[in-house]
Amino acid sequence: MTGTARQMTRYEELAEDIAQSIHAGVLRLGDRLPSVRQASAGRGVSQSTVFQAYYLLEARGLIRARERSGYYVATGSRQLAPEAETPSAPAEVSGPIDVSELVFKVLESTMRRDVVPFGSAFPSPLLFPLQRLAKTMAATVQKLDPWSSVDDLTPGNASLRRQIALRYLADGLTVQADEIVVTNGALEALNLCLMAVTRPGDAVVIESPTFYAALQALERCGLSAIEVPTHPREGIDLGALEQALQRHRPKACWLMTNFQNPLGSLMPDAKKQALVELLARYEVPLIEDDVYGELYFGTRRPTPAKAFDKAGLVMHCASFSKCLAPGYRVGWAAPGRFARDVARLKLTTTLAGSAPAQAAIAAYLEKGGYDRHLRQLRHALMLRQDAVAQAVARHFPPGTRATRPAGGYFLWIELPEGTDTLALHQLALSHGISIAPGPIFSARPGFRNCMRLNYGHEWDKRAETALATLGRLAGAVAGARP
Amino acid sequence: MTGTARQMTRYEELAEDIAQSIHAGVLRLGDRLPSVRQASAGRGVSQSTVFQAYYLLEARGLIRARERSGYYVATGSRQLAPEAETPSAPAEVSGPIDVSELVFKVLESTMRRDVVPFGSAFPSPLLFPLQRLAKTMAATVQKLDPWSSVDDLTPGNASLRRQIALRYLADGLTVQADEIVVTNGALEALNLCLMAVTRPGDAVVIESPTFYAALQALERCGLSAIEVPTHPREGIDLGALEQALQRHRPKACWLMTNFQNPLGSLMPDAKKQALVELLARYEVPLIEDDVYGELYFGTRRPTPAKAFDKAGLVMHCASFSKCLAPGYRVGWAAPGRFARDVARLKLTTTLAGSAPAQAAIAAYLEKGGYDRHLRQLRHALMLRQDAVAQAVARHFPPGTRATRPAGGYFLWIELPEGTDTLALHQLALSHGISIAPGPIFSARPGFRNCMRLNYGHEWDKRAETALATLGRLAGAVAGARP
Repeated sequence: MTGTARQMTRYEELAEDIAQSIHAGVLRLGDRLPSVRQASAGRGVSQSTVFQAYYLLEARGLIRARERSGYYVATGSRQLAPEAETPSAPAEVSGPIDVSELVFKVLESTMRRDVVPFGSAFPSPLLFPLQRLAKTMAATVQKLDPWSSVDDLTPGNASLRRQIALRYLADGLTVQADEIVVTNGALEALNLCLMAVTRPGDAVVIESPTFYAALQALERCGLSAIEVPTHPREGIDLGALEQALQRHRPKACWLMTNFQNPLGSLMPDAKKQALVELLARYEVPLIEDDVYGELYFGTRRPTPAKAFDKAGLVMHCASFSKCLAPGYRVGWAAPGRFARDVARLKLTTTLAGSAPAQAAIAAYLEKGGYDRHLRQLRHALMLRQDAVAQAVARHFPPGTRATRPAGGYFLWIELPEGTDTLALHQLALSHGISIAPGPIFSARPGFRNCMRLNYGHEWDKRAETALATLGRLAGAVAGARP
Repeated sequence: MTGTARQMTRYEELAEDIAQSIHAGVLRLGDRLPSVRQASAGRGVSQSTVFQAYYLLEARGLIRARERSGYYVATGSRQLAPEAETPSAPAEVSGPIDVSELVFKVLESTMRRDVVPFGSAFPSPLLFPLQRLAKTMAATVQKLDPWSSVDDLTPGNASLRRQIALRYLADGLTVQADEIVVTNGALEALNLCLMAVTRPGDAVVIESPTFYAALQALERCGLSAIEVPTHPREGIDLGALEQALQRHRPKACWLMTNFQNPLGSLMPDAKKQALVELLARYEVPLIEDDVYGELYFGTRRPTPAKAFDKAGLVMHCASFSKCLAPGYRVGWAAPGRFARDVARLKLTTTLAGSAPAQAAIAAYLEKGGYDRHLRQLRHALMLRQDAVAQAVARHFPPGTRATRPAGGYFLWIELPEGTDTLALHQLALSHGISIAPGPIFSARPGFRNCMRLNYGHEWDKRAETALATLGRLAGAVAGARP
């Protein structure tokens, strides 16, 4: 990775400001936006800048024009539970990890079709252009060069890597195709990056709470977890991180910069830059899990921390599993100075990605239409967040707090102190509903009153009823607390 | 795994005997077989048994009937280099491994289309029914249930696992579908099995020479290699293995029972059974790499060691990469009592196999035609072995020995003592020819005068010329030895 992130233009900045006001609930559904003339005067920008900003917001589905009466908020914040906004306060060192048994139990429950999947890690597969993708694959596989089984060996299909590099470029990052290693989903990318920079016994910084797959990877590799306080809106605490770097000399830092799983936190650009500079001072590689970056509700894709990397220390990992092709298992790493090590680890563990899947996604990206699909996907997720967040406010017990993520498909819900979400998980499951209880997101026994709620599935009668039931059960469990 | 291996019928035994005589060069191309009456009398079997045996051999392309004059050998042994038949004699403990750099260099050279791929690990992709498979995939992917991305998560696509279980059954093994874990090729299966039963610092038994991926896996996992003498025809030395079990208390044994890479050795059934019983006495799991088992030149698929497993200790690993669908990356493990551990390791490292590839192969197997393809594939490989083995005898320097494997697509060639195949590798590469030099198959610096030769590619003018050149270069390097 060389070069720097693209600057936002003035109209994008304005649009972003307004989008954030909508998400924070300052501007609400149906509110009228200032007229173009008012906004131009008030913000000190040209009328054409305001026009462009409104146009962008309209294209994103955030506002809507009514003939002869201006622009109105078309979505946004509503009757919501109070925002979860207290940073976590993990114990300093977590020691050995043993979270797997619980995680597997939860995972299994979300694989059953008869269970309402609020605990699932995946969005609904119905959100994706699977028919179009299948057509592309059908055409591609029949033209596949027999030698692709050799040519597409790791680092992977050349045109797919070129398409990925082009998308980086469109987002203002310069990542060369030959830095990219195609992997079996982002999960393999993350695991390979971790293996490339650590040895058993090393310490690794993670967020608190964190994606359970990070805990499982650390557990499997014999690494110890340094859990660092993380803010539900803005991500990891850099002061606490620096202390951890000084005290524990970790060999890597594994973070989700954009719409963190489970919190939904989004690190502001300036904070990402400070993060990258801080880690560079300590020569600590950053494993950046950016699988949700495309699922933003604002006006532009949030910048990966990799955009600020000058030392080649940022290993950016992403995939098509959450935004285009679930089940195809095509992801990648752009591992900076560790690219060769990561490619070799892939060669010796799983050899290569599936050639037909790589070729199909490359062809789909070449054909165009991906961005249009992404716009629809983001809009659908945004609407579902609205609906689910309001339902949580209606049905969950008093004292419940929830995050208001500006992207992704998870809410992080804090139930009243002392509520046991492991008990709620069991109880809900007996009612055919899954949740992801807080303790699976931490190496120590923590977040016991928290849960992650997936809003990326169909919001239909069944889901509404299930959420009302879940709220009632949460109330019962909260009422039963000691 | 429960149950026992299918017994060979009398006519299969007879056919197998004759097939072995052909391969060993006792019966040669054009030789007339005994008449049915003679064979019946000589062997003490019924005439119908002889008929069935001859019919089977004819179906396999090993013999041919001429009208009114009986059966003749249609293929088989010819002017060959003396057989390589000295077991290896590795140093007892190998200590830490560092073979990777060399392996990667060799691997890279075999990925270049302008290089004649005698060093390649793969057979020619032109040997496979890729068009038919592509058609099946095209039809399958367009009917794929959107929820397959969830349903086909590890342990994998249910109908694929059922088809694999049916193939086990046809070979006389009872492996339930729910023991099977679909993986990203056999390489992932092997790696997951190794991880499931070892911890860093443990010792693992391997063959000498061994498939370099085993060395890389041990290196990556911080394991030490116990290399055990291995016979070019019959595989690992059980006496030496028992000594190693007593002395080093290894935590696993990683072997290729059928057409070992690089030797091509095939363990006889009785030896496999003794191996399984020996390991069971020491409670050591067997990781059985059986990726070449389908590529037999005899009359029936050689039995996996897993057929003799009563303790659930045999972890059988195989794939479709070498017999049906290179590049699709679909393999599996049947890991006995470790099935759950292997599935969980897969879930936390690569999550799942590619859903379209799994579904396509399942549909192909359901449709039938796989066995017909396999017969053609085996016959093609057998003919190529004939051709390449004869060319080696013609062009390689005096004192060269070669194995005569009864399956697979590798010859193991011993050049005159003192010949440096690393130098030959460099020299050959400068002539656009790759080989796999002996030292990449051992943790210690060994097998320096040996090389593995891939005969699974097109035997055309280019290949013939390249093999003549290689023989000449080998002579030059042999002549230059100290």
